[in-house]
Amino acid sequence: MRRLATPVFVVLLTSAAASADDIVLRGMGSLHVGGRVVEIHGKPVRDIVRVPGGPSSRLDPNGQYQVEQMYAQYFLPKNPKGKVPLLMWHGGGLTGVTYETTPDGREGWLNMFVRKGWDVYVSDAVERGRSGFASPDVWAGEPVFLPYADPFERFRIGAGDGSWSPDRTKQKLMSGVQFPVDAYANYMKQIVPRWLSTDEAVIAGYTALVDKVCPCVLLTHSQGGSFGLKVAEARPDKIRAVVAVESASGGNPGEAGALKDVPVLMVFGDNVDLHPRWVAYRKLDLEYAAAVRAAGGKVDVINLPDLGIKGNSHMVMMDKNNDAVAEVIQKWLVDQGLTIEGL
Amino acid sequence: MRRLATPVFVVLLTSAAASADDIVLRGMGSLHVGGRVVEIHGKPVRDIVRVPGGPSSRLDPNGQYQVEQMYAQYFLPKNPKGKVPLLMWHGGGLTGVTYETTPDGREGWLNMFVRKGWDVYVSDAVERGRSGFASPDVWAGEPVFLPYADPFERFRIGAGDGSWSPDRTKQKLMSGVQFPVDAYANYMKQIVPRWLSTDEAVIAGYTALVDKVCPCVLLTHSQGGSFGLKVAEARPDKIRAVVAVESASGGNPGEAGALKDVPVLMVFGDNVDLHPRWVAYRKLDLEYAAAVRAAGGKVDVINLPDLGIKGNSHMVMMDKNNDAVAEVIQKWLVDQGLTIEGL
Repeated sequence: MRRLATPVFVVLLTSAAASADDIVLRGMGSLHVGGRVVEIHGKPVRDIVRVPGGPSSRLDPNGQYQVEQMYAQYFLPKNPKGKVPLLMWHGGGLTGVTYETTPDGREGWLNMFVRKGWDVYVSDAVERGRSGFASPDVWAGEPVFLPYADPFERFRIGAGDGSWSPDRTKQKLMSGVQFPVDAYANYMKQIVPRWLSTDEAVIAGYTALVDKVCPCVLLTHSQGGSFGLKVAEARPDKIRAVVAVESASGGNPGEAGALKDVPVLMVFGDNVDLHPRWVAYRKLDLEYAAAVRAAGGKVDVINLPDLGIKGNSHMVMMDKNNDAVAEVIQKWLVDQGLTIEGL
Repeated sequence: MRRLATPVFVVLLTSAAASADDIVLRGMGSLHVGGRVVEIHGKPVRDIVRVPGGPSSRLDPNGQYQVEQMYAQYFLPKNPKGKVPLLMWHGGGLTGVTYETTPDGREGWLNMFVRKGWDVYVSDAVERGRSGFASPDVWAGEPVFLPYADPFERFRIGAGDGSWSPDRTKQKLMSGVQFPVDAYANYMKQIVPRWLSTDEAVIAGYTALVDKVCPCVLLTHSQGGSFGLKVAEARPDKIRAVVAVESASGGNPGEAGALKDVPVLMVFGDNVDLHPRWVAYRKLDLEYAAAVRAAGGKVDVINLPDLGIKGNSHMVMMDKNNDAVAEVIQKWLVDQGLTIEGL
């Protein structure tokens, strides 16, 4: 290296030098897509208390409002190695933060796949995070708030129902779990409220993103898997592949034939058989996989323990071995011919 | 340049080469700070309809919930030139997206200040964006939704009350306005609901961020200005400077003396005198500035038109001349000795 000292110094003067650990981007930014302007009319003018203890004031909810747009943030590596962008779609009760720094401070899949050379778009579904949410005059139903213990017991971090301990001294962990349990409190800070009435708007937002930035690969998680497969059915010409990590269900079984030319990878973590909810979800996924195959399509299913990758919770991208799982996904994407050869 | 071809190629083989337009980061990621776990008890179990047209189901709101945490995302340039990180705090009804790509697709202040060598932390205030929000069982009052025309008429984009035209054919613009008016629809997609009852929780979240990542400089906008000055009063040892862009008010006048060693820059756009709301806000700011000065502190006030920088709306960081305003702020930060000399 010493021999290169002088020329490297010259490069430093004309541009920033980068080391192997750096992230070198040709661009980064964000955008909102989709949504609509609604006209609220005929609603009664109400008196509300805006600040606790404060005076009552008039609220006239009528007028025009922007609703149901979707936020996405993108990172474009200097030397792209993916043939198309990679879109990361999160699961229920969460936002794009799912793919960022893990709750215990390690790099998440956003950084990992940018480092692998993918243009990555991380979005917040309609109603979540930086996409904002609409008023009760626009959306029926109430948002749902997830209790503190719920993901612990349900996402195969703890050993199922009753495994959470409110004083945190008697927690029963899933055997060999890779989730960073000591950082569970930080994980819970990523949880946001969700509605149960907005699927149509969520899918419209994702479709608008696909129409804007694809062709692309979708990398989805949990609830996002169903959205991803349904959007792929509607836009098979735009989707080069779907990686559905622990999808909460398949797409529309009657539309599975639309994916005959869209390769799909389904990835499942460990201990699925120990929790009836995940047994049921995987069954739905595999039934959808069978429907795609029956129509001439290709669905690969990877149960991570079969590869010797053990202990993964539902939050695979945050688990301590998230890098190993990212490698499995990357290899599959390479095998589908979705990376630029020779780089 | 031709003479350098061979050594540059060698560098390419050992690391990514970067050009002047690239963003070279030694790291990027995100975190949540602050918040608390609340125990909801004694609330009635209700029947709610979760999905429109669906069955009624039981909602028991009692239990433990994580609330009032705050999200921040950080970008750390390869060769930092700021002595401390720069924290960007947005205004009311908005999120950290304020500082990202402008509504018309240009670079925002996040990219600009990262390119200038600052470690930048962009946060979503408690209750907004990726920070999530709490249930009505935790927060009193209702969220407020901003009508479509409101920012147009109020943020000095249009020429005040009545300047919006619902069919968009008869809009009256503020003279020479720099806001990218053609992208107003995209700007409205950045707006999120806000509460009016959460100031204490918002300040606690910002304080937790300061305790985690500072000493630092605060760059605030609008509602965020009041939060920034109040947090600086509480943590003057952690705040090296406050840049308050169109602050909606000052800090606590009685606490202004806490800032005697914290330089403050107040920045105002154009046409402030033409809108009574901004006349009132600037008056509050200048009264606070006087209180800081009376206690021996330093507050610089820049009215951008006095520098020949004209037409700025309230959303200065999105205006077409946002780069010129960024330069004004950067020069002030350099003058305060907050950058590493010789870089």
